[in-house]
Amino acid sequence: MSTLRPIGVFDSGVGGLTVLKALRRKLPGRDFLYFADTARVPYGRKPREMVQAFAAGITNFLLQHDVGGVVVACNTASAAALPQLAERAPVPVWGVIEPGVEAARRVTRSGRVGVIGTPGAIQSGAYQKRLEALGLQVWAQPCPLFVSIVEEGLSQSYEAELMARHYLAAHPAIDTLILGCTHYPMLAPVIQRVLGSGVTLVESAQVTAEVVGAALPASNGGMAGNIRHFVTGDLLAYQHTAQVIGGVDGEMEWLDVTRL
Amino acid sequence: MSTLRPIGVFDSGVGGLTVLKALRRKLPGRDFLYFADTARVPYGRKPREMVQAFAAGITNFLLQHDVGGVVVACNTASAAALPQLAERAPVPVWGVIEPGVEAARRVTRSGRVGVIGTPGAIQSGAYQKRLEALGLQVWAQPCPLFVSIVEEGLSQSYEAELMARHYLAAHPAIDTLILGCTHYPMLAPVIQRVLGSGVTLVESAQVTAEVVGAALPASNGGMAGNIRHFVTGDLLAYQHTAQVIGGVDGEMEWLDVTRL
Repeated sequence: MSTLRPIGVFDSGVGGLTVLKALRRKLPGRDFLYFADTARVPYGRKPREMVQAFAAGITNFLLQHDVGGVVVACNTASAAALPQLAERAPVPVWGVIEPGVEAARRVTRSGRVGVIGTPGAIQSGAYQKRLEALGLQVWAQPCPLFVSIVEEGLSQSYEAELMARHYLAAHPAIDTLILGCTHYPMLAPVIQRVLGSGVTLVESAQVTAEVVGAALPASNGGMAGNIRHFVTGDLLAYQHTAQVIGGVDGEMEWLDVTRL
Repeated sequence: MSTLRPIGVFDSGVGGLTVLKALRRKLPGRDFLYFADTARVPYGRKPREMVQAFAAGITNFLLQHDVGGVVVACNTASAAALPQLAERAPVPVWGVIEPGVEAARRVTRSGRVGVIGTPGAIQSGAYQKRLEALGLQVWAQPCPLFVSIVEEGLSQSYEAELMARHYLAAHPAIDTLILGCTHYPMLAPVIQRVLGSGVTLVESAQVTAEVVGAALPASNGGMAGNIRHFVTGDLLAYQHTAQVIGGVDGEMEWLDVTRL
């Protein structure tokens, strides 16, 4: 157990576990609180104001549990709520969008970059604005079924292949694609196959963990850190869905969503 | 307000609203309690024992609210839990499977019938066993993405068309297809297009409402009945998703899923 304060990580569901896994590799000695808002998943098709209210409530809850920093491990929530959260919280707040944008800027040679995400994340224009501000040309594509494909355990199925072709096969000339949803790393193999080897994938989970890992001390002892999960939906259902992504060791507890 | 006891209807989410809508057309004067277990949706990929426990808890809750009958408006829960529920409850309990099977038997001329549903409903073999016991030949096909397609509001999209072709285009010679999931009526147009006019669709929502409507008095007054919704997940999110299906007038209240 580290004596440093735990790091709070939240997502609408299990997608953010890809970020948590990457964070643990970077900061193995730190404690984490992972908040899965599975009572209200998915965020991707909900109104912006609703997502902002959810994100504010969860951030307050994590702050009450004395976290030393908050990682918004959800692109929809990052797009909708990050500036407000960062302004109000007394600790650093990271989203998954800026790290993805920065990584794409480093990776691209042609200056033509793609981004895929939920309808909410893409419609917000959050990635597009930032990428265009860096002088990059942007192709943005919503992929509304990808989260369900991952959560149904179909990431390696023919369904995934079919939908990936549908969403991606007609892409313009790009050399970099940002996976703008924390569920999408599970689909990286099929996405890479459809796009071919000429396109480099940027996984926000990975690059966000690098940014957070660089900003925070790894630990102040040699012990492995603990994870504690707070889940607003059913605990058994969470464990079941989370098996798809893995990384669910640690204590889990149910939380009444009306307390937020 | 009817002086007859209300009819309890439950589903994992909004799919059962197709059953509720059909029931209201048959029994316009009756009161209904609709229970949407959106904190734990979807049931289709969860273990059978988990679904049985959910269904038992919800049925007890409805009985505590003095319902005069329970409609399990969810194929997965009907397949997993109906016999146990019917055995224990002091009021009639209807599922959506028997009515669909009966309707298919009446409709088919060739004796070759198809059924589609969630992986949970199809793997349970509930439809297949009953249809085969009637001497029918059965083609059963799980369609794991159809619920997500409906809940994402994509029922009339090209995604729906693509997946319907994937799941259904290679069907053997059948003249009847049971839509074995309460979400699927929303996909009836695309399913019919893929199958062609030689296949008759059986919607469990419709045929279940006929069976329940025939068994219960319509009302004892001329007034329109009331609907009360109990929702275990977020209320706003429920209203938002339910717009896709409609039929969500009535009072709504959130319910702590741990109380069940």
